[in-house]
Amino acid sequence: MTPDPFDLSADDLWGPDNFPFGVASAEGQDAHVVTRLGDHVIDLAALATLDGYPKWARAWSNQSLNPFIAQGRSSWASAREWLQQLIGDDARRDEVRSAMRPLDEVTLHLPVEIADYVDFYASEQHATNVGRIFRPDGDALTPNWKHLPIGYHGRAGTVVVSGTDIVRPVGQRKTSKDAQPVFGPSVRLDIEAEVGFVIGGQTELGSRVSVDEAADHLFGVALFNDWSARDIQAWEYVPLGPFLGKSFASSLSPWVTPMAALEAAKTPLPAQDPQPLDYLLGKELFGLDLELIVRINDTVVSRPPYKEMYWSPAQMLAHLTVNGASLRDGDLFASGTVSGDEPGQRGSLLELAWSGQDPITLDDGSQRSFLEDGDVVTITATAPSAGGGRIALGEVSGTILPSR
Amino acid sequence: MTPDPFDLSADDLWGPDNFPFGVASAEGQDAHVVTRLGDHVIDLAALATLDGYPKWARAWSNQSLNPFIAQGRSSWASAREWLQQLIGDDARRDEVRSAMRPLDEVTLHLPVEIADYVDFYASEQHATNVGRIFRPDGDALTPNWKHLPIGYHGRAGTVVVSGTDIVRPVGQRKTSKDAQPVFGPSVRLDIEAEVGFVIGGQTELGSRVSVDEAADHLFGVALFNDWSARDIQAWEYVPLGPFLGKSFASSLSPWVTPMAALEAAKTPLPAQDPQPLDYLLGKELFGLDLELIVRINDTVVSRPPYKEMYWSPAQMLAHLTVNGASLRDGDLFASGTVSGDEPGQRGSLLELAWSGQDPITLDDGSQRSFLEDGDVVTITATAPSAGGGRIALGEVSGTILPSR
Repeated sequence: MTPDPFDLSADDLWGPDNFPFGVASAEGQDAHVVTRLGDHVIDLAALATLDGYPKWARAWSNQSLNPFIAQGRSSWASAREWLQQLIGDDARRDEVRSAMRPLDEVTLHLPVEIADYVDFYASEQHATNVGRIFRPDGDALTPNWKHLPIGYHGRAGTVVVSGTDIVRPVGQRKTSKDAQPVFGPSVRLDIEAEVGFVIGGQTELGSRVSVDEAADHLFGVALFNDWSARDIQAWEYVPLGPFLGKSFASSLSPWVTPMAALEAAKTPLPAQDPQPLDYLLGKELFGLDLELIVRINDTVVSRPPYKEMYWSPAQMLAHLTVNGASLRDGDLFASGTVSGDEPGQRGSLLELAWSGQDPITLDDGSQRSFLEDGDVVTITATAPSAGGGRIALGEVSGTILPSR
Repeated sequence: MTPDPFDLSADDLWGPDNFPFGVASAEGQDAHVVTRLGDHVIDLAALATLDGYPKWARAWSNQSLNPFIAQGRSSWASAREWLQQLIGDDARRDEVRSAMRPLDEVTLHLPVEIADYVDFYASEQHATNVGRIFRPDGDALTPNWKHLPIGYHGRAGTVVVSGTDIVRPVGQRKTSKDAQPVFGPSVRLDIEAEVGFVIGGQTELGSRVSVDEAADHLFGVALFNDWSARDIQAWEYVPLGPFLGKSFASSLSPWVTPMAALEAAKTPLPAQDPQPLDYLLGKELFGLDLELIVRINDTVVSRPPYKEMYWSPAQMLAHLTVNGASLRDGDLFASGTVSGDEPGQRGSLLELAWSGQDPITLDDGSQRSFLEDGDVVTITATAPSAGGGRIALGEVSGTILPSR
């Protein structure tokens, strides 16, 4: 007899404190917005239809979360409340079961049609490590770093869902040993373990979102791997920033955890000194106690603690819009590499193996300074939940294929 | 009696060698794809319907060019051929007239739903001028400049159609005279006269577009003003490139001139020394003889010559995709500021007034180092046409409003 999908252990990371949003399709069927309970997905379009919520049913009968995200914060909140009540109601389990499917019977898709994608650089430890590696004789942090959350735009069209294979990029590189640029596959292919924030609630060009208004626009969180070809990046990035060293692919988890599921994960920010300018201050200055784990081929290589990030998500959003840049539903910004104080908490191989000077050893005895073809990188994370346990964020994974 | 819209002077810049694409709506009606003849627009959806081309009629019954762009190069070519034949057929003028409207009776919209937007830096003169201004003691060009077309991603969601007012951005700046960053409206608001290239024909992640395949993806050209807050940019851009100094708004002309209308404008590139790597070589290495004119409040302040640009559009596209980055219909890349050899050919105020050291004088006697509130900036351009005359590109214009 099939086990009842409602029979979850008390410490299940996908219990009723979680309820992330994703997009899934069963074979031969249209993709719909779904949530997850244990090892099952629940077709939210079907559930909203049977319970008589046509506004949600329409939004969730889509191949992306965007129409639902566009409904705004009050709809996000009431949908979550409805979902928790309905699924918590023992008398209605048969109805809910009718909309459930085992996770392994569906394909998970990129959950958001991404409008603009911005990558920040919000970990002081990561920025310091990178500064020490690239500019050993200068200050590790650039003079602007503690005054503003540094960011740049990336390529939205090459954000792919977890599980998508990553073809090793080719391009130009030139080290100090090369007389001329060399063309070929990247030999310093790296990961960046990041947290992505999915944005909803479009704004008007010329307007700003303050730190305290940010909550109206922060829909949810998804793990993010900003694959980076360090050799391509190093040769191209002065003066206009990273381009082809990043744009070949960035991977996003298929599950977006709503901010409402992360209330218990809110933590104070690390002390900010000097005090940022007023537009970066407010009551909503929180960090998030997300514990990330990075695996290469099943070896845990790092445990980056998101709670040590210097800049708050709300500060990043306030900064992104302070110049009047408008937001669109489906905008995504990522935190930048999450690195903690300890060597085993660094979110990139560049830092973990210190630019190749100190390779890491995997469980099979092989060493890595950068990624090899065939390597599988998986980032997972958990957070404290409202009920006192923990919830999982969706994992983001990718396999490196040889260059073409 | 109303003049016949077909009565054009022989040197009309919007004659039958032109036929750009745009999106327009008359009051109370849906926006459709249109073309332009003289001072009239022609509703292409209506024209394709009456002539029995449902595939085009469907694509053109939209608020953006994207569905048509997605049909690919053979459709672009046959549509242009059909249009030139139909409109050149005297016997069918009444049919065409039924789809025409005076330009001043319609609103022109952003013609393309922009997927990803990339900005290049392809003028040697511009890069040299900027290098001399910002790094007076170092080499004007960075070591990578002649090896690859430097580029970066910008904010697609804040690309606006010509005529949209530009609110002066606020943000952080810090000059060497400031002990701490200062917050406020930008005091160095600038223009960048550029040419944008609209891309069609999506590609697969991991694949590349060669120089000689670029023509399959270059749909057309539109003038572009990459408004730039130099003070915000200077403080933020190390190490990850421009962000808020650019992302508040970029203006695009409402008309996209198909590449097929620019065959007579193709010119050899300036000599490239050193020879670029193989992936940047090919048979399709052309420049474009576009003559730009930049006006501030009706004073001509610059005449940038696009034919002096160092990197070819095909090279920019080949570079953009060499790492396997995929293309989407509606991608846009811009050339970077167009600056020529002469002082009067520089495409930014930063260069024209040499970072404020040598302000320019407008016809009303007022001086400008950077833009003032109320200034109207207009960029126009013409190109040689197939018939031996000239055609206009769509103008891009914007008025500076005070910061909010």
